[in-house]
Amino acid sequence: MRKIIIGVMGVGENARAIDLQNAYQLGKLIAENGWVLLTGGRKAGVMEAASQGAQAAKGLTIGILPDRDRQNVSEAVDIAIITDMGNARNNINVLSSDIVIACGMGLGTASEVALALKNGKKVILLAQNPESRALFANLSPNKLFIADNPQQAIALVKQEI
Amino acid sequence: MRKIIIGVMGVGENARAIDLQNAYQLGKLIAENGWVLLTGGRKAGVMEAASQGAQAAKGLTIGILPDRDRQNVSEAVDIAIITDMGNARNNINVLSSDIVIACGMGLGTASEVALALKNGKKVILLAQNPESRALFANLSPNKLFIADNPQQAIALVKQEI
Amino acid sequence: MRKIIIGVMGVGENARAIDLQNAYQLGKLIAENGWVLLTGGRKAGVMEAASQGAQAAKGLTIGILPDRDRQNVSEAVDIAIITDMGNARNNINVLSSDIVIACGMGLGTASEVALALKNGKKVILLAQNPESRALFANLSPNKLFIADNPQQAIALVKQEI
Amino acid sequence: MRKIIIGVMGVGENARAIDLQNAYQLGKLIAENGWVLLTGGRKAGVMEAASQGAQAAKGLTIGILPDRDRQNVSEAVDIAIITDMGNARNNINVLSSDIVIACGMGLGTASEVALALKNGKKVILLAQNPESRALFANLSPNKLFIADNPQQAIALVKQEI
Repeated sequence: MRKIIIGVMGVGENARAIDLQNAYQLGKLIAENGWVLLTGGRKAGVMEAASQGAQAAKGLTIGILPDRDRQNVSEAVDIAIITDMGNARNNINVLSSDIVIACGMGLGTASEVALALKNGKKVILLAQNPESRALFANLSPNKLFIADNPQQAIALVKQEI
Repeated sequence: MRKIIIGVMGVGENARAIDLQNAYQLGKLIAENGWVLLTGGRKAGVMEAASQGAQAAKGLTIGILPDRDRQNVSEAVDIAIITDMGNARNNINVLSSDIVIACGMGLGTASEVALALKNGKKVILLAQNPESRALFANLSPNKLFIADNPQQAIALVKQEI
Repeated sequence: MRKIIIGVMGVGENARAIDLQNAYQLGKLIAENGWVLLTGGRKAGVMEAASQGAQAAKGLTIGILPDRDRQNVSEAVDIAIITDMGNARNNINVLSSDIVIACGMGLGTASEVALALKNGKKVILLAQNPESRALFANLSPNKLFIADNPQQAIALVKQEI
Repeated sequence: MRKIIIGVMGVGENARAIDLQNAYQLGKLIAENGWVLLTGGRKAGVMEAASQGAQAAKGLTIGILPDRDRQNVSEAVDIAIITDMGNARNNINVLSSDIVIACGMGLGTASEVALALKNGKKVILLAQNPESRALFANLSPNKLFIADNPQQAIALVKQEI
């Protein structure tokens, strides 16, 4: 039976401390709610932290990897989907998620928010700077939601999926 | 912790009865061995039969879908990965599998066998016609294995992963 | 011998009049400079207008199409690359361009700007709203350039390729 | 105005001498007929030889590259499309071609023949071994054509596009 998949997107190597904390907490809450976590799968930043949080709560974790080899896969990923298609895999990340949470903002994350909204997916911006909020609210007012902390983000997920 | 993924590839709408029986049996045996089943995810042929077999044995099933919408996803798929990239998703099917079993042969399956071998993956041909065996044994003698029934295929998986 | 390819990205169906005028002018100037124009290839908005401008100046036009069938290909496209991979083709658009010009802003365009900068490509924002300028300047200050009209954009291309 | 694109697919690094000769001749004839040549674009084997043949006859050459960087692009490619999607780009090769010629056979070529036929494209097998002919004739009798030399292949192209 099809499981609910929650995508958590965010910065890899240069993620901020607050984003890593939020990502871990999101992963934990997603698992506790019985949902599956989907990330970009790499052993870095928000992807890794969210997967570790879900793993700590005995949840199932999926990683959609950009590379062909497996050396950069997070050890907290249960199901590694190997795309070998670089950043084009960002579109698969968002299409496969029932709802997308952007935890922090970088260029990859910005592409994922844009692609998610373009594909008609709902997106929750968590702890974002005003520039991100302004641009995406401007481009897609109806599918965009704002959260200030992981608990608010999860409350929005429950309301919107 | 990363789970072992076994890919089962085969014909969709026009699958033969023997291939559907083999696919169901393969799915069941894969689940009973504690592995995850990966297929092309559609509600048709070998994809559907293998997923139903795995589901009957309480296994986890992944489907890598070619389309953007979800109306053709098999109900026996637990984790639906939505690629929206048509037959190019065949490369993701084989890259994400630890080993690939071709259960019957069609044009999509032939592309998956070729892509798997091209990517250095081991492939088990199950109950194939002589033409398939001859071409792929010719192109990749070292990575190709032949099985006559699902039990033999699973024995080869155990030996080769 | 490899030709220089200039990518022009922008809104399809709901493009603004100013963006269509700019796109036509960009296409014309790109062709007059002996460069090849690359767009998303559809018969709509900025893609179509830029291709028509290049065609009017006897330039070569490439379209990277998201769909599998050819019914939505602009008639001003000389070389139609059929990807059948939906919005994931946006990554190919930017990787194949020597430099990217964003002519107007929509969700697809925002994903292309983000993917281009993520891939290390230079991007020229033409006639953009303050929100777009602010977000992308924040995320990638060194690769982002601002132009107020097509002539300025082309001057930046000459300087930066 | 949309140009006719003829795809020539074949082995890279380990191509046979006869396949390289045929590929060069095919490229030359394609250019002489006013068509555009499309290959996998790498600086190797059939891709390189066909592009050189077309270049010698002043034709236009497109390469659909699997990698992200440009160091392996053939110098005889005019238009380099950078996909960064590995062997999944094989599907774009065949979808973008009006007709596909397989010049020699390897695992990548086999995947392209299978994907082309799966997508409903006509395929010409040039100078193939009996195993290839047998498998693909079995899987798709109506779209498959056989040629013994480049001249025959080009005559089939004229008849079938």
